[in-house]
Amino acid sequence: MKIINEHVTFDSKGHSDIIDITAQVQQKLTSSGLNNGSLLVFVPGATGSVTTMEYEPGLVADMQAALERLAPKGLEYDHNLKWGDGNGHSHIRASMLGPSLVVPFIDRQLTLGTWQQIIFIDMDNRPRSRELVLQITGE
Amino acid sequence: MKIINEHVTFDSKGHSDIIDITAQVQQKLTSSGLNNGSLLVFVPGATGSVTTMEYEPGLVADMQAALERLAPKGLEYDHNLKWGDGNGHSHIRASMLGPSLVVPFIDRQLTLGTWQQIIFIDMDNRPRSRELVLQITGE
Amino acid sequence: MKIINEHVTFDSKGHSDIIDITAQVQQKLTSSGLNNGSLLVFVPGATGSVTTMEYEPGLVADMQAALERLAPKGLEYDHNLKWGDGNGHSHIRASMLGPSLVVPFIDRQLTLGTWQQIIFIDMDNRPRSRELVLQITGE
Repeated sequence: MKIINEHVTFDSKGHSDIIDITAQVQQKLTSSGLNNGSLLVFVPGATGSVTTMEYEPGLVADMQAALERLAPKGLEYDHNLKWGDGNGHSHIRASMLGPSLVVPFIDRQLTLGTWQQIIFIDMDNRPRSRELVLQITGE
Repeated sequence: MKIINEHVTFDSKGHSDIIDITAQVQQKLTSSGLNNGSLLVFVPGATGSVTTMEYEPGLVADMQAALERLAPKGLEYDHNLKWGDGNGHSHIRASMLGPSLVVPFIDRQLTLGTWQQIIFIDMDNRPRSRELVLQITGE
Repeated sequence: MKIINEHVTFDSKGHSDIIDITAQVQQKLTSSGLNNGSLLVFVPGATGSVTTMEYEPGLVADMQAALERLAPKGLEYDHNLKWGDGNGHSHIRASMLGPSLVVPFIDRQLTLGTWQQIIFIDMDNRPRSRELVLQITGE
């Protein structure tokens, strides 16, 4: 049993930009040489989340609308009153969807469904360069 | 340390049907022979979620009502306009609650609370046969 | 590769009390002697959740307001009609945010962002003593 630590890096536009990281993640899994185990994706930071979805433009827009309903940008947030960075809604959305995802892999393949991708949602209110932690554990 | 891959299979009615899979999961854990470690439940597919709850009819109805508030069926979803399958709300609910759950086990027992069950929620808008991935890692 | 089971204990005020458990968790990690692996925090019970956030008073208040929007206390819950304990909203919030979190650690340090803490949210409607399961797996 081995533990391999990797990273996934990319640029995001913020404002609930949704990025499909499946190909990058699968590539790191392939080069790990491990056959069987689990893959942990973790967001170091308080304004991003990782989950899965069918990555198509319709659902990307639908998810952004749903996040706006969940924690609307226009509400008054104590965080904004105190720190003035205007991203109170980003923090709430990120905490609610969560910063970590664990996916099993079998025979070197992620056990995702056919129309299921691993996505990162950048909840922050500005473009950012992102680096996620990828930890692959298995044999 | 060993990794054991299993499946849990069942039929669901869709429409946010909530199914208690604790007994099946505990049974797979018992037959794994492992004493100590963690159990990963993963939904391969973009319209189902796994989490925990006190499984009683009142809360089942309350959760279904809460999911309807979170992503109402009657809203206009771009996904529906494009693909016509009418399950835009199912996808949003599933991505928000998430497809994976990790539960520790100690002395062959899941460390669940007394009134806490592992549940699958089928967010899709039709009955389906479901197969979840169960990965048991431990010693 | 080793598995170490620990606990984190504390008192909470309930009513969506949000508690920063990062220092306790990091201390258990340090005393485990493990360098590299993952740490699983699990809530045994159906009225608490674990996630991450920037722990500052503004966001604590913002999160409590967001949870009130997600599953308002004043709604009619079937759970309350049946069991009379008045915490239907607590259960819904807890199931939606989820009972488990997995964080990688590298060189004995959690890979959290600089302004990211591990938090427990006690969704229940009364003060409680809480004991979370902490499982540290690594080498």
